[in-house]
Amino acid sequence: MAKPALPALIEDLVVANRVLVNEGVLDAYGHVSIRHPEKPERYLLGRNLAPALVTEKDIVEYDLDSNPIHAPEHFAHFHERFIHGQIYRARADVHAIVHSHSPNVIPFGVTEHPLRALYHMSSFLTPGVPVFEIRESAGMSNMLISNNALGQSLAQTLGGNNVALMRGHGNVIVAKTVQMAVFRAVYTEVNARLQLQTASLGGPINFLAPEEGEKAMQVLDNIHVRAWDIWKKTALEQMKG
Amino acid sequence: MAKPALPALIEDLVVANRVLVNEGVLDAYGHVSIRHPEKPERYLLGRNLAPALVTEKDIVEYDLDSNPIHAPEHFAHFHERFIHGQIYRARADVHAIVHSHSPNVIPFGVTEHPLRALYHMSSFLTPGVPVFEIRESAGMSNMLISNNALGQSLAQTLGGNNVALMRGHGNVIVAKTVQMAVFRAVYTEVNARLQLQTASLGGPINFLAPEEGEKAMQVLDNIHVRAWDIWKKTALEQMKG
Amino acid sequence: MAKPALPALIEDLVVANRVLVNEGVLDAYGHVSIRHPEKPERYLLGRNLAPALVTEKDIVEYDLDSNPIHAPEHFAHFHERFIHGQIYRARADVHAIVHSHSPNVIPFGVTEHPLRALYHMSSFLTPGVPVFEIRESAGMSNMLISNNALGQSLAQTLGGNNVALMRGHGNVIVAKTVQMAVFRAVYTEVNARLQLQTASLGGPINFLAPEEGEKAMQVLDNIHVRAWDIWKKTALEQMKG
Amino acid sequence: MAKPALPALIEDLVVANRVLVNEGVLDAYGHVSIRHPEKPERYLLGRNLAPALVTEKDIVEYDLDSNPIHAPEHFAHFHERFIHGQIYRARADVHAIVHSHSPNVIPFGVTEHPLRALYHMSSFLTPGVPVFEIRESAGMSNMLISNNALGQSLAQTLGGNNVALMRGHGNVIVAKTVQMAVFRAVYTEVNARLQLQTASLGGPINFLAPEEGEKAMQVLDNIHVRAWDIWKKTALEQMKG
Repeated sequence: MAKPALPALIEDLVVANRVLVNEGVLDAYGHVSIRHPEKPERYLLGRNLAPALVTEKDIVEYDLDSNPIHAPEHFAHFHERFIHGQIYRARADVHAIVHSHSPNVIPFGVTEHPLRALYHMSSFLTPGVPVFEIRESAGMSNMLISNNALGQSLAQTLGGNNVALMRGHGNVIVAKTVQMAVFRAVYTEVNARLQLQTASLGGPINFLAPEEGEKAMQVLDNIHVRAWDIWKKTALEQMKG
Repeated sequence: MAKPALPALIEDLVVANRVLVNEGVLDAYGHVSIRHPEKPERYLLGRNLAPALVTEKDIVEYDLDSNPIHAPEHFAHFHERFIHGQIYRARADVHAIVHSHSPNVIPFGVTEHPLRALYHMSSFLTPGVPVFEIRESAGMSNMLISNNALGQSLAQTLGGNNVALMRGHGNVIVAKTVQMAVFRAVYTEVNARLQLQTASLGGPINFLAPEEGEKAMQVLDNIHVRAWDIWKKTALEQMKG
Repeated sequence: MAKPALPALIEDLVVANRVLVNEGVLDAYGHVSIRHPEKPERYLLGRNLAPALVTEKDIVEYDLDSNPIHAPEHFAHFHERFIHGQIYRARADVHAIVHSHSPNVIPFGVTEHPLRALYHMSSFLTPGVPVFEIRESAGMSNMLISNNALGQSLAQTLGGNNVALMRGHGNVIVAKTVQMAVFRAVYTEVNARLQLQTASLGGPINFLAPEEGEKAMQVLDNIHVRAWDIWKKTALEQMKG
Repeated sequence: MAKPALPALIEDLVVANRVLVNEGVLDAYGHVSIRHPEKPERYLLGRNLAPALVTEKDIVEYDLDSNPIHAPEHFAHFHERFIHGQIYRARADVHAIVHSHSPNVIPFGVTEHPLRALYHMSSFLTPGVPVFEIRESAGMSNMLISNNALGQSLAQTLGGNNVALMRGHGNVIVAKTVQMAVFRAVYTEVNARLQLQTASLGGPINFLAPEEGEKAMQVLDNIHVRAWDIWKKTALEQMKG
């Protein structure tokens, strides 16, 4: 397979912002990035802007310490871009990251109930969903990942998993491609809503077994593009109109 | 009553895909089929495509082993078409099938709380809603009904009922017509949401009695077309515009 | 105040159908009627049609036994029009009736938790919300109010209240005007959703006291038109477009 | 920073009405006001009108006893404008107020479960969210803040906090700017919904600590405008038509 060209990747990064707003994962906050396809020590992220407003001209290149590279002087940068830089540093397999306040996921960050995979569509949760407690790294803070040290702590909590929750804040989701990161962000939100409902029924819950999760994840590798294609079509129509 | 002509049936099959997306039963996944009106050993199902994109040109004919008949070479086929073939084989009375991940229904597949009819609109649930546990047939799997043997097991679990849940996956709904299959899929989702809410109130729930369900189902035979007509009107407008 | 003319009342009856669909009280089922302004032994109700499709030409006049008066031969009539006839007969103060399957209200008809007023906007619930158990009148039935005897039983259960629930079916709401009937139908649905949420918190609920309810209802007499005006504006725009 | 001019402030007040409807905080009821930027003993509030209909011509100036100043004869005034006058009198730091029946917040006014901050976006709740019990001031009432004495009681309950609930009625939210008042109203609604869901999971909830809340509130001072800009853009497009 030919390596996707940079302009095509950047288009998909812009589209990813729209899709995540459309699907209720992002509101005016949160962000999505990709690792630079040619320079693995760089990543691409919109400047400090509401996701629904991001265009190709707003995409900034950062190094893994999250210093902007050749960004226009007047650009403001996300206070929490260190999430991205430090996870790209820690996880060579990761090429796209979503940070959001995805609403239905918030409850699982502030209780002792772990988020777990209810069905095959969210099988990427089966490796485990750790919760990052910022108090352990920063004491009483403003809750933000506002420097490289905190980014590194979060990356450590994430470990080799696909999703980590941030207590009293939101979550971070990683994948090999921006299409898969978006897919995982959408179905993390769906699974959270369904798990809240299932818990309200009471009694034991029959979650996916680890082996089922592993096998179902391979299916998602093939089928996630079907959702992406629909979502992208809608987003492109909005961006034209 | 004159037998409905094939083109009219295929139009309704295409419309059914749209309606199920509009009503929140399908997202980019799931599928709906009809038995061929003239060849009872054949069924019609869209090729592997998101439901919102299906047109008449995407409808493929399959035999009951789910082999495609004269399909274009480049068409991909749903991995789970065996659901359809094996249920049509086992149930001569069934002429339409919906397979979905209908969200509010998922909780009832992973707990010990059976889905039951709360009101006359979902009276078709009163015969019973069995849960298919794929582990009993396939051990630790990728959760998919990806061959005829699994399709047959699912058909056995369904038995003579109208709806069966698939643990950690979704559900399957059958009917005599595509209009009724769509109606049942929509009100299965509604009933599931209402049952989740009712259960959260606590205490005993006064479900429809079996005899009430049986009688109310006869009413639905007459009135389900009123909903279909509205849904179809909306879908056709979307498909034009 | 001049008596409202019949054409203006019929326009509002048509609009009421649309508003109740827009606000999620009705789907393709349910109906709304008014007492004839000049002939108190007659009422006006759409023919058997999905509410979103009702126009002025579909409005039929019925006597209080629910016989249609001069209706076109080809018109079908609602099986449950007896709800309307018998309540108008029993309640001289009632000039508008809504029958719906309003979703969030269903749980309160099938459990022992009465629907009660959480706040001033639903203060019309404070007189009490009885539940009609059709089994007591009809044994094992198809759940429908399909004749005058059942309509009379339902009217008896309603008594002097503004709202009655129908177990395993829906509810009926009465008022002095169609505007107020629509207002009550919308806020019955809202109150039900809020009460479900409140109950899920656990512990005692501080409902409106009867005297608070009585006083707050007088406020609604004045302010309900503010909501109606907005809803009507939206509905008229839809009907044009 | 230059003081914002009156016309710009009034435009934002009109926009605030729209935004609060779009975000589900207001329906046909509730209101938002600003303190007059040049005359601190005056405030600006729409006349008695559904929020979605308010234009610049509907904005009325009131003194702190809530007497209208030079309002056209035919204007009706909100029965509850005393909420605004008395809070502006009691709280020199407050320059904008929202009163709403924000739906998900209602449960927390009628149970013993206090509304508390689940995450940084609602950190403005950490000072505390008192509940105003109108029975203590007015006995059995129609629930409305319909005079200056009741407005004063409500202002006393609010104290130095940002949000107060009104039992069986709604809530009141204050801020230094109309943009921040709108932001707080939206995220009070979101936090309430998330807290209802979290409570349904059972077990202890790890709310923001007071110190975390204080620090996170400073972040919101900077970032709330990002949401406002998006919301205002949408509202202005709607108002153009």
